[in-house]
Amino acid sequence: MVIQDTQVPAEEIGLRISRAQDTMADHRIDGIIIIQRVDLYYFSGTAQNGLLYIPHEGEPVLFVRKYAPRAKKESSIQQIIEIGSVTEIPSLMKDIYQKMPGTLGLELDVLPVNDFRFYCDLFEEQKCMDGSPIIHKARMIKSEWEIGMMKAVAELSRKTFRYMQEVIEPGLTEMEFSGMFETFSRKHGHGGQLRVRDYLTEGYPWHVLSGKSGGMVGLLDAPASGEGTSPAFPCGAGSKKLAENEPIMIDFGAVLNGYHIDETRMFAIGTMPEKAYRASLAAIEIHNRILEQAKPGVSTDFLFQFSRDLSKSLGFDAFFLGPPDHKVSFVGHGIGLELVEPPFIAKNRGVVLEPGMVFALEPKMVFENEFSAGVESVFHVTERGARLISTVPVEIFIVNPR
Amino acid sequence: MVIQDTQVPAEEIGLRISRAQDTMADHRIDGIIIIQRVDLYYFSGTAQNGLLYIPHEGEPVLFVRKYAPRAKKESSIQQIIEIGSVTEIPSLMKDIYQKMPGTLGLELDVLPVNDFRFYCDLFEEQKCMDGSPIIHKARMIKSEWEIGMMKAVAELSRKTFRYMQEVIEPGLTEMEFSGMFETFSRKHGHGGQLRVRDYLTEGYPWHVLSGKSGGMVGLLDAPASGEGTSPAFPCGAGSKKLAENEPIMIDFGAVLNGYHIDETRMFAIGTMPEKAYRASLAAIEIHNRILEQAKPGVSTDFLFQFSRDLSKSLGFDAFFLGPPDHKVSFVGHGIGLELVEPPFIAKNRGVVLEPGMVFALEPKMVFENEFSAGVESVFHVTERGARLISTVPVEIFIVNPR
Repeated sequence: MVIQDTQVPAEEIGLRISRAQDTMADHRIDGIIIIQRVDLYYFSGTAQNGLLYIPHEGEPVLFVRKYAPRAKKESSIQQIIEIGSVTEIPSLMKDIYQKMPGTLGLELDVLPVNDFRFYCDLFEEQKCMDGSPIIHKARMIKSEWEIGMMKAVAELSRKTFRYMQEVIEPGLTEMEFSGMFETFSRKHGHGGQLRVRDYLTEGYPWHVLSGKSGGMVGLLDAPASGEGTSPAFPCGAGSKKLAENEPIMIDFGAVLNGYHIDETRMFAIGTMPEKAYRASLAAIEIHNRILEQAKPGVSTDFLFQFSRDLSKSLGFDAFFLGPPDHKVSFVGHGIGLELVEPPFIAKNRGVVLEPGMVFALEPKMVFENEFSAGVESVFHVTERGARLISTVPVEIFIVNPR
Repeated sequence: MVIQDTQVPAEEIGLRISRAQDTMADHRIDGIIIIQRVDLYYFSGTAQNGLLYIPHEGEPVLFVRKYAPRAKKESSIQQIIEIGSVTEIPSLMKDIYQKMPGTLGLELDVLPVNDFRFYCDLFEEQKCMDGSPIIHKARMIKSEWEIGMMKAVAELSRKTFRYMQEVIEPGLTEMEFSGMFETFSRKHGHGGQLRVRDYLTEGYPWHVLSGKSGGMVGLLDAPASGEGTSPAFPCGAGSKKLAENEPIMIDFGAVLNGYHIDETRMFAIGTMPEKAYRASLAAIEIHNRILEQAKPGVSTDFLFQFSRDLSKSLGFDAFFLGPPDHKVSFVGHGIGLELVEPPFIAKNRGVVLEPGMVFALEPKMVFENEFSAGVESVFHVTERGARLISTVPVEIFIVNPR
């Protein structure tokens, strides 16, 4: 992967900055400081160690601690200043802008309290407020360039799902099998690390839940958590060996040039029990019917309720999105530079679909202590409807034992 | 890996809780609330979704949102209460303890501002303070049981380094090669995900820097960052292919039952240039000499300065810990349930070694735009000195091209 190929175009950065600037007034914020790595990459095109200041009008400035030569190569921000310490920033800002902002937006959804206090002391004359809604509002509408990046990672994932079908076999542990397909995917560009914004959620690409592992409810805000590798990491793949004739749910996330994909398919080696097969087909039915409903102007709340109603009419109400007392309250989530990002296709969120929104849609069922069944694809909202970005066939993958 | 085998013993949990209780008075804190996953696991033995309240005296209570049956199986905390929402906690606490704490410690080093505000509203009569120093103070002294866990992951890592020697070959990309040895390691228990406390630092096990990749300074607070897979993730392994006769630095982190190991060795296929070989030997010399100096009562500041002085007398001052303008200010870091945790063997930190502290010691050199050379092992401070937990031979691994 050559850096030039993956560079975020200058027009793209310009559009993002101006979209953030457009909404600052609504939040009575005079400028925002971007610190978190993903946000910094989104607004500057570089993920080097630094801070980006975006005033409500005029040009942004990127302050780089480490490593300025690389930041300058990657970012189209005009003004990039190398700093030794963050404490230099206020006086540099005064020099550049003359007038300092009265209110300053910071990423209060991710910034730890102690860091926040440090910045409040540093900007003692500014009122520090939450700038994260401005950032999320900009990020949740993907540009054509971004949809292109997501198509590229979807293609990588399609190849990886095909590879899984070639190498899956009984006796491999869930964790070992995940290592195999992740290695294949890394060879073709997968970056390995899935990024999740919430500090209590860990992203990982090895959510392989075979047979009974799929029936394990756990800590995750997901229908099933799996066994994991130990009580310290009690989710995702574990040491259980894949077996013939059991339902195997593979939820794979890949990342390419910072953009994520998140897809789930049911696998079986040999065959799978009728009950699991029917549940898997029902999940596909719900998946397809939601896609028909998705278009600009439709509320995510409606889509969520629609999926619940449909699961009921298909006779899977008791299993849909988890067992009765542990159902999750969403059937889809935004995805892009983070694996999970706003908006959500969820209960009572009051979000309305807009062109450019991208979602991972994941109708799943859990038969507690038995198995999981489900499917997941990524789609984007177009001017008139919704279109899959995912290109993995929406099927159940039954492979012959080797 | 069976859950029973990996369970944290009840005596262990009891000791940890009382160690935290012992220091609460110093911080004028009446009780702490533990939310972050690693801290929660440390103090309760389970990483399920919940909160642990530890009063300054008396028994703790674990509130579990999801999934209580598993939390009850894993944790030896006597009182485990299933809750539907965190908002139930204050009144439950009132019922249990009669008297509510006046001051409440929270993990302000990791808790995001918006979450903190939520808890401040929830505990509106309590004064919310920083409880993280209490947590770090407890966590940085490892028990014998913990040292045993770290020896187990060290053994896993030893096997993995041996496997690397068997399969390394020219033409593999850095990322592909890392996938291969990570898969091997996962097969033997490696959990895949390295945990790092700081929200701006991402832990990953694929820090393979071959030849020129090792000469790339970047965003990391590490001597070299490597190229990474794209500007969005500009560190660690990339798409460069391993070649014969170049210095290859492999910095591998593994995790077993939540405990981390972090080790670095130099590899070469065929041979490596004399300059890189001499630098690698110098790094080993510094590594060994620091180990001789480490014992209870010695300050980490002294060890850091000692390593700097030694690098100078060996003639590698200009490269040690990074190129002149981008040197890092530490030569070692605490390690345990997180890959990087306090204390640090660093400049001006004023920490004194105590028995039970565990460090990753990593004297490394960067020849900018050329290569990296270095070594890294994990050791623990004993009653009278220091002893390696790592068992990978402290050598340069030269393998024959296949």
